[in-house]
Amino acid sequence: MPTATDSQAILTQLQQWALAFDVRLAELLAQACPAATPPDRLVEAIRYAALSPGKRLRPFLACKCASLFGMTEDDTLDIAAAIECVHAFSLVHDDLPAMDDDDLRRGRPTTHVVYGEALAILAGDALLSLAFELVALHAPDAQRTSAITLELARAVGAGGMIGGQADDIQAEGSPAGREVVERIHRRKTARLLGAACKIGAIQANANDEALLAVERYGTELGLAFQITDDLLDLTASAEHLGKDVGKDQSAGKQTFPACVGVDESRRIAANHVQRAVDALAPFGEAAADLKELARLVLERTR
Amino acid sequence: MPTATDSQAILTQLQQWALAFDVRLAELLAQACPAATPPDRLVEAIRYAALSPGKRLRPFLACKCASLFGMTEDDTLDIAAAIECVHAFSLVHDDLPAMDDDDLRRGRPTTHVVYGEALAILAGDALLSLAFELVALHAPDAQRTSAITLELARAVGAGGMIGGQADDIQAEGSPAGREVVERIHRRKTARLLGAACKIGAIQANANDEALLAVERYGTELGLAFQITDDLLDLTASAEHLGKDVGKDQSAGKQTFPACVGVDESRRIAANHVQRAVDALAPFGEAAADLKELARLVLERTR
Repeated sequence: MPTATDSQAILTQLQQWALAFDVRLAELLAQACPAATPPDRLVEAIRYAALSPGKRLRPFLACKCASLFGMTEDDTLDIAAAIECVHAFSLVHDDLPAMDDDDLRRGRPTTHVVYGEALAILAGDALLSLAFELVALHAPDAQRTSAITLELARAVGAGGMIGGQADDIQAEGSPAGREVVERIHRRKTARLLGAACKIGAIQANANDEALLAVERYGTELGLAFQITDDLLDLTASAEHLGKDVGKDQSAGKQTFPACVGVDESRRIAANHVQRAVDALAPFGEAAADLKELARLVLERTR
Repeated sequence: MPTATDSQAILTQLQQWALAFDVRLAELLAQACPAATPPDRLVEAIRYAALSPGKRLRPFLACKCASLFGMTEDDTLDIAAAIECVHAFSLVHDDLPAMDDDDLRRGRPTTHVVYGEALAILAGDALLSLAFELVALHAPDAQRTSAITLELARAVGAGGMIGGQADDIQAEGSPAGREVVERIHRRKTARLLGAACKIGAIQANANDEALLAVERYGTELGLAFQITDDLLDLTASAEHLGKDVGKDQSAGKQTFPACVGVDESRRIAANHVQRAVDALAPFGEAAADLKELARLVLERTR
């Protein structure tokens, strides 16, 4: 069993890593999106969305998975930034009035509340495009640019995250079985977490077997993460969580708690975490941090 | 001077090419976006947006520029499809109520009118992501995947088309000088047309000098195209044009006709066409079709 010290260590590591990551992310944004004629509200909106305080879990996973295969963290920040841009894009668009209509995100007003709907839509679009620009600019070589671009595009597209969000919206209000809820979670959340891990490993030239293992880890972690997200939506306060709460229920969203109850949801999340940990078995002690991170998902309070 | 026969020949060529292109585009969409659980409304919305009847000018330019450097048209359709996906994405998002709020496009109700705003936003997102997926899947090799991805992302992003749309929206209602209008057109319209030409040439392994020449051709053609678009918005009927007309004026859009009048706008468009033709001088007779296409922009009626 992990000790409190283990948990503290990986959390501290994530938080310190995120500080360095945010510095680099801001640099990359400044290079790729120089303001045209200040004040350029679009560039402001892009920076607001991408640099708002977040956990930076997805880019951290990419870097940790790359370091499993010997790549230094400094060499992995730029591709990790591409993954965070995709995540930021999805938050901006999902929060739009026509979508989940959220006013609060990461403790601040959502992008469309501050910059208006038009610029929020465009800022999201620009962040998605920027993700691919960063991959083309910063992958170690053309071969890996090509592989990472394909992986990222598939994780994001109609068969992945965007398709999951569409399913989620269309399923609102009608009671769904566990299989439907899991399929939505798998595409909407778990796919990008799995891709983040896989992209980190692609960058570090891992072999196909290893790619599959870290992708499975990320996917299982993602499923656990989404279930705990839904549990927090039921139990935490908006102030603590930094986003609107209780919205899943009022919107008739498909969630595990709504579908199988709170206790069973906790049990299912724990199963996914165990599967995530098991997927890393081939890597032994080298993957201790990643295993610890997966276990922490069950204890998350925000 | 071009004869009526020349003009007819390149128009007929474009129309026949577009028929073959649309077949391939539909195949690529079916491969990349198989319906998850029919009826999958997201996939329907993507197909509705991408396969609606259009001129297919951007993908045609990409193919013609590739063929300048010896590539056969069949080998260029898939990258051309990526460019058309970007164009379709931009139309869907620009038409949204929060943006230009258009109900009619290519003679049919806009995507959000048919599928709702949420699915229209997601369909646009998916088309943008799909463009990069198609490049990664179908560029001739990793080197060209990387170069085309970078070119496309920069043409689309905050420094390109999306930035131009943001400028356009922010400039609405306040009278602007000719420089401002041209800067908006350059980013919003001309950049993607220039990129389409350049990407076609990259695909065919053209040298740097040739890339610059075809990009300049596309950019100048794009500027002429946008000016004639604005002129048509003033003079044509919605039925003929297949989209709402008179909207630029009522929305206080920045256009050349509003800024310098109709006659001067026609003169400026003709200058851009001449510059487009001049840019192709190094290619002599091989570029006759492309030159003819540029001249036709001045005569367009839709």
